[in-house]
Amino acid sequence: MEEGERIIALLHGRDRPGLVSRLSGWIYARGGNILHADQHRDRQEGVFFQRLEWIPAGDVEMEMSMFREISEKELDLETTMLRSTVRPKVLVMVSKFEHCFSDLVLRQRAGEIKCDIPCVVSNHEDLRPMAEMFGLPFKVIPVSKDSKAKAEAELAETVRSKKADLIVLARYMQILSPEFIEECGVPIINIHHSFLPAFAGAKPYHKAYERGVKLIGATAHYATKDLDEGPIIAQNVTRVSHRDTVEDLMRKGRELERSTLADAVRWHIEGRILAYKNKTVIFD
Amino acid sequence: MEEGERIIALLHGRDRPGLVSRLSGWIYARGGNILHADQHRDRQEGVFFQRLEWIPAGDVEMEMSMFREISEKELDLETTMLRSTVRPKVLVMVSKFEHCFSDLVLRQRAGEIKCDIPCVVSNHEDLRPMAEMFGLPFKVIPVSKDSKAKAEAELAETVRSKKADLIVLARYMQILSPEFIEECGVPIINIHHSFLPAFAGAKPYHKAYERGVKLIGATAHYATKDLDEGPIIAQNVTRVSHRDTVEDLMRKGRELERSTLADAVRWHIEGRILAYKNKTVIFD
Amino acid sequence: MEEGERIIALLHGRDRPGLVSRLSGWIYARGGNILHADQHRDRQEGVFFQRLEWIPAGDVEMEMSMFREISEKELDLETTMLRSTVRPKVLVMVSKFEHCFSDLVLRQRAGEIKCDIPCVVSNHEDLRPMAEMFGLPFKVIPVSKDSKAKAEAELAETVRSKKADLIVLARYMQILSPEFIEECGVPIINIHHSFLPAFAGAKPYHKAYERGVKLIGATAHYATKDLDEGPIIAQNVTRVSHRDTVEDLMRKGRELERSTLADAVRWHIEGRILAYKNKTVIFD
Amino acid sequence: MEEGERIIALLHGRDRPGLVSRLSGWIYARGGNILHADQHRDRQEGVFFQRLEWIPAGDVEMEMSMFREISEKELDLETTMLRSTVRPKVLVMVSKFEHCFSDLVLRQRAGEIKCDIPCVVSNHEDLRPMAEMFGLPFKVIPVSKDSKAKAEAELAETVRSKKADLIVLARYMQILSPEFIEECGVPIINIHHSFLPAFAGAKPYHKAYERGVKLIGATAHYATKDLDEGPIIAQNVTRVSHRDTVEDLMRKGRELERSTLADAVRWHIEGRILAYKNKTVIFD
Repeated sequence: MEEGERIIALLHGRDRPGLVSRLSGWIYARGGNILHADQHRDRQEGVFFQRLEWIPAGDVEMEMSMFREISEKELDLETTMLRSTVRPKVLVMVSKFEHCFSDLVLRQRAGEIKCDIPCVVSNHEDLRPMAEMFGLPFKVIPVSKDSKAKAEAELAETVRSKKADLIVLARYMQILSPEFIEECGVPIINIHHSFLPAFAGAKPYHKAYERGVKLIGATAHYATKDLDEGPIIAQNVTRVSHRDTVEDLMRKGRELERSTLADAVRWHIEGRILAYKNKTVIFD
Repeated sequence: MEEGERIIALLHGRDRPGLVSRLSGWIYARGGNILHADQHRDRQEGVFFQRLEWIPAGDVEMEMSMFREISEKELDLETTMLRSTVRPKVLVMVSKFEHCFSDLVLRQRAGEIKCDIPCVVSNHEDLRPMAEMFGLPFKVIPVSKDSKAKAEAELAETVRSKKADLIVLARYMQILSPEFIEECGVPIINIHHSFLPAFAGAKPYHKAYERGVKLIGATAHYATKDLDEGPIIAQNVTRVSHRDTVEDLMRKGRELERSTLADAVRWHIEGRILAYKNKTVIFD
Repeated sequence: MEEGERIIALLHGRDRPGLVSRLSGWIYARGGNILHADQHRDRQEGVFFQRLEWIPAGDVEMEMSMFREISEKELDLETTMLRSTVRPKVLVMVSKFEHCFSDLVLRQRAGEIKCDIPCVVSNHEDLRPMAEMFGLPFKVIPVSKDSKAKAEAELAETVRSKKADLIVLARYMQILSPEFIEECGVPIINIHHSFLPAFAGAKPYHKAYERGVKLIGATAHYATKDLDEGPIIAQNVTRVSHRDTVEDLMRKGRELERSTLADAVRWHIEGRILAYKNKTVIFD
Repeated sequence: MEEGERIIALLHGRDRPGLVSRLSGWIYARGGNILHADQHRDRQEGVFFQRLEWIPAGDVEMEMSMFREISEKELDLETTMLRSTVRPKVLVMVSKFEHCFSDLVLRQRAGEIKCDIPCVVSNHEDLRPMAEMFGLPFKVIPVSKDSKAKAEAELAETVRSKKADLIVLARYMQILSPEFIEECGVPIINIHHSFLPAFAGAKPYHKAYERGVKLIGATAHYATKDLDEGPIIAQNVTRVSHRDTVEDLMRKGRELERSTLADAVRWHIEGRILAYKNKTVIFD
């Protein structure tokens, strides 16, 4: 629709008067065409957040570098920048459930999620035929109690060699160690099959069934070293009743898991998420 | 619409073949006109649940008594029966928040919830003017750490003297003791301002804000001696974002609390709820 | 979970006292084990609806035939019967959009929708690679203004030769003639990309955008000779705002189309839908 | 929370580079503290929209007047300005249904909707007792075919004498003439009891029931001379099934009508709505 490459900047830092004016004024003065300029203030914390998307008049790399001088050096705002033409590499991790995996791949193929998938990693062989059907490299890294450290080393090596920018846990059923999460160098998005913080941990559909809740949910969040405690990106729920068995909950839950994870991945790739403390700001 | 008084029977017990046939056959043979006959089976637990609503051909009390012979004695089903023309007496308890209170009263006045409200009990004076505006008796029973036992004794006496059939905690901010709940002799419906089991206990909106969830909820449940652990009757959620302050969460939550509590009270009064173990079957 | 083949009967006809008792009594007397017995009465129209699901003690075909004697001959109820072990054959029709198609196929492969897909028919070549990826026969029947009658004759022949039990229009962008719909001999489920009756006809997302609505929807319905006027099976909506472009509406709408069509097809195959006049009763 | 009076400006006009920078820069230079600065661009139409909320350093009236010089004269943006301390006067019009009326009044009394209600106007006596209960002036202006012009003249006179800033049609069941709507001089918000554009006109719940839809809705919109065609402000839906009678639809619909109208009125009063062409931009 809009011509030309776009720069997306995500900024946050201590709130002060004049930030909006300074940043938009600079882009305007450089001849840039601002397409979106959304900001948010957390008054309680005194934090300023902004997402800027613009078409620069000059060389993209140069403009990005100059902008960073302003935002980081002058205004002391933590700055993340993306180029609209650069497709991130997403490493998808799966176990035995296919629904989130096939959903992500089909959206990626349809152009709805703009990324490359250099590799699918699993701790099981089960989804190899589906990965092959989609023409995607499939690598099995088995995990047992004893082999966990070795498996995570291999995973880290895969992340490096594939130059992954993001790891997506598409119902990957192993728990990654805090060390791996902290040291792998890329963000990790996980889908948890409950409405967190309700039913954290294992077997949430069974727990929801036992408790007799009237709604079930799914939560996409960044993985942090505290299990199921990372910043929440997206949540959705659907209605259930006494007529629903655990199997019905699982079936209804798959819908939620698919679309909730897809939203989170797409927002991340489009530079719409600013995580801070244990929360997220979503610029939609 | 339908002429004549209706009998509503709520039944549950060990599932066996032939229950539906026996019960509906008996009503049919007695000349009754069945308006609704909903059943549910919990296969895992082997429990049968049914709600029957019919217009009897004969004397209502006599038919109820004869039906009970079949359902309780012959079929060993726990049986609760209501007459459509008998309005239950609902004791409403409040503290300082008015939204659930005024909502219930307006629905009751509009005929949407068919009950009488013999008395409003509060631990504060704040809502007396509103109760008076609605022409409702308002009784203050103050509660302090030392006076709790005495206050609950007075409350129990009020329940008895008003012949209450149901207590509704419409944002009543005191915790009733397990003893009172077990001994007061009537069911108690509470509205909790979160999507249970998430954010049980005090200040759920603050906790939801701190956790950065993307949906908030409200839960109507029967009060049991385990706080916030009783059978869930109704739950609703609404979307929130980083733009919402705690105050926004409270405002959005009031909507949920009002309609969720109103649904629960209406269903209870219409004999649509069967609680068993820690769950409910809702016949809608 | 339950052992043995199940019979599903869908019944409707003039309401009279004793129907529930007679039908459940007959199954009970024959030694059948009723798993589900849901009924509905349209009081305004005086119509009785029932869905029965049971495990017969005797030979399945024999029991079905005997049941039909009761339900049709004695009680004059229109009767449709299914066997849980017989997988229906579903002819899927597509044009250029893939999302509903791939969604249906993945659910079918995962066992969520229990049917066979003997053939995919399209008026375009576009989705052949996807059909081949899924290992499904793909047949192109081009349609032009002049060739429409011939194309529909070929389609009818395909329905016959593939012994299809159901046609699913998974964003098939041609209008089938009233003659074809009436004479093809199998039900047809269509997905319309709006919240009918709003925005019937072509380009509903554009119309929704122009009108500035705050919610968009999708509607699955049986195709009848009156375009977009057939009995509605399922509807879902999602929130949109001024920030959403027509492209955003289309993206959000794809989610709705997928899940709404999938629900409708699954319910149809599980014998949960009773269509009468221009409405449906859904036994969930 | 924030100290001091706030100015709210709603702006729209032809989009050009530099608008955001110019406006926020001006406020910053004047020592104002911007609390919210939301903007939107309709690229298709080339229109820029902005909502600014700030605490001025200087005299409020002076700052407003100076700001208008910039926004209107220099930048050619249509400008509406509000002061946070000035409570608008809302004329509420009703007929016989009370639910939207009591809901608005209770929210107003609770401080959720910050306005005054100088008068309630009705074409019937029915809601007089409720208005009196709430201590609100209640004026009956009867309307018949012959008296319509006279009645609208009296209504216009009431609007003037009460200095109303907004008319809210809270289930007022008469159609206002295009002449009145164009000449009354204040915006009019109406609640329509369907998901527009579906079921425009009279008896939408009956129409929804006849059509067999699976969701019903409510729509709050500005009244314009074309009936039910004005800019949509808010829409909500709720699920219905074959089990719901027309009366159930009405009951469920009342929930939607209440909350949908309340949102619209609150947003209008807080200066969150920009209507243009036949649409609205909602700054939430």
